Amino acid sequence: MFAEASAGGRRALARLLSAVEQGGDKGRAVAAYAYRNGGEAPTVGITGAPGAGKSTLVDGLISAARSDGVDQLAVLAVDPSSPFTGGAILGDRVRMQGHALDEGVYIRSMATRGHLGGLTVAVPEAIRVVAAVGMALVVVETVGVGQVEVEVASATDTTVVVVNPRWGDAVQASKAGLLEAADIFVINKADLPGVRETRRDLEQMLDLSPPRDWRPPVLEVVAAKGEGVDELWREMKNHHSHLESSGELALRRRDRLEREFRAVLVARIEREIDALCSDGRFGGLAQSVVDHRLDPYEAADQLVEQVGTGSN
Amino acid sequence: MFAEASAGGRRALARLLSAVEQGGDKGRAVAAYAYRNGGEAPTVGITGAPGAGKSTLVDGLISAARSDGVDQLAVLAVDPSSPFTGGAILGDRVRMQGHALDEGVYIRSMATRGHLGGLTVAVPEAIRVVAAVGMALVVVETVGVGQVEVEVASATDTTVVVVNPRWGDAVQASKAGLLEAADIFVINKADLPGVRETRRDLEQMLDLSPPRDWRPPVLEVVAAKGEGVDELWREMKNHHSHLESSGELALRRRDRLEREFRAVLVARIEREIDALCSDGRFGGLAQSVVDHRLDPYEAADQLVEQVGTGSN
Repeated sequence: MFAEASAGGRRALARLLSAVEQGGDKGRAVAAYAYRNGGEAPTVGITGAPGAGKSTLVDGLISAARSDGVDQLAVLAVDPSSPFTGGAILGDRVRMQGHALDEGVYIRSMATRGHLGGLTVAVPEAIRVVAAVGMALVVVETVGVGQVEVEVASATDTTVVVVNPRWGDAVQASKAGLLEAADIFVINKADLPGVRETRRDLEQMLDLSPPRDWRPPVLEVVAAKGEGVDELWREMKNHHSHLESSGELALRRRDRLEREFRAVLVARIEREIDALCSDGRFGGLAQSVVDHRLDPYEAADQLVEQVGTGSN
Repeated sequence: MFAEASAGGRRALARLLSAVEQGGDKGRAVAAYAYRNGGEAPTVGITGAPGAGKSTLVDGLISAARSDGVDQLAVLAVDPSSPFTGGAILGDRVRMQGHALDEGVYIRSMATRGHLGGLTVAVPEAIRVVAAVGMALVVVETVGVGQVEVEVASATDTTVVVVNPRWGDAVQASKAGLLEAADIFVINKADLPGVRETRRDLEQMLDLSPPRDWRPPVLEVVAAKGEGVDELWREMKNHHSHLESSGELALRRRDRLEREFRAVLVARIEREIDALCSDGRFGGLAQSVVDHRLDPYEAADQLVEQVGTGSN
């Protein structure tokens, strides 16, 4: 299926990505193949609060990248899957249909449909799959600023954080940990009032942050009119050059692989916990917790002891 | 310290909650004491996107509850701690200062400062601590709609989801899993245009949801002017009566305790993984992953085998 997908077969690629999202044995095989055979494509994460205009921005970036000679690129739009049903609504995809007929652009909404490691593992796997079939750039767009979304968007070479000119937006970005994650700030909808204040807030917070080799630039963009998008694309390329020349690219990728390994390990052990939880010992101890005979820690201690994982 | 906190000592209570947030041995002792000796206070979760006006709404609810004879209540404002620095900005607290001089009201911003189980474990523990010192109502406000925030806010008896009259707000709520979590919907800032459309979207989505005994009412509120807040308070009481009379209250609390037990178990085992990760075996396998000699799954399999947890 990889051969077909590499030759441009979109349905083959979609099947590969579905397998990765489901994360079962087939997903694992696909991920392993991509891992061994894939190149590393440059990756960009785009994150920000709902309504900040990320999809419109991505739309503009696609045009900028394609005009600049990027022959094949993929957009993974990560929908936070509902913690209750696993469902996800694929609205943002529609907005990028300006590129629906461009064969050099592949757009897919992603959610975890059962992958044990969640998006933390599924997204890097999907990135390697699209890289392995020849994508020269991978854009990861996330639709929220929760911990998982920020983690996913910042697990890329270059993280772009999108805010709007509104009181408090800069502060919200800081709250959500975006300040530390950002390589580039975009004030989108910069034709609305409040740009100066938002820029001032962001610059002040950057002044107070620990100094880094690369100070995140703050760009003003009106994505809906295409203003400032080319400059953003230039800054993204600048940042990538900086990563390469400073040696940080290799370090970041190394860190990411280590974190991914750890996440796989946690998922693997959680699966064993699931098995435990569906067996009688868990049920009995859970009942003790409900009856207030044991507190949750005591129950956990007893279960671990019974199973014998607590050996060290 | 519990005796002091029960007698109204706010500093004693603050120390108990700090211990819980830190989650070390002292936190565990505090949590265990509260677990064995605490009553169960009714809990309400308030969640919604940043800027939806949750703090102002909570402010109004405090007044409504106090006027209605609730003698002691606590608000836990949950700040998503940054995944990078653990930092949190406590802005929302300030907005509730209308009640700063009311000794029947205790407001605290919470973040996890090292608790291994994260907010999923720390918040229920904190709820039991404030219940154990005599709070008759606990309001849990979360400042985001990420998976963790929704999980925290919905781990209460009654979950109130706050949206604004804007195109897309209802859809965003559905995306974030709030539809399944909500017991009551509030359209706050209902003096802005778009209320009818937002209500229609919500009602339509509720029509399409699996039927439940309790259909979440959709209330229009202008919290900043105090309009509709008394009605919200009435609906909250109605919902609690429904939970009690239907027997669902006991079921929900049982489910929550089981989930908490499981989260403690996962945290306990993750701590062991951390120990593994700082030892040589992990380092060697991580290097193999970085060198593309093993994929992350193979490395995880080998590590688990070496440690001997994978016995079943």
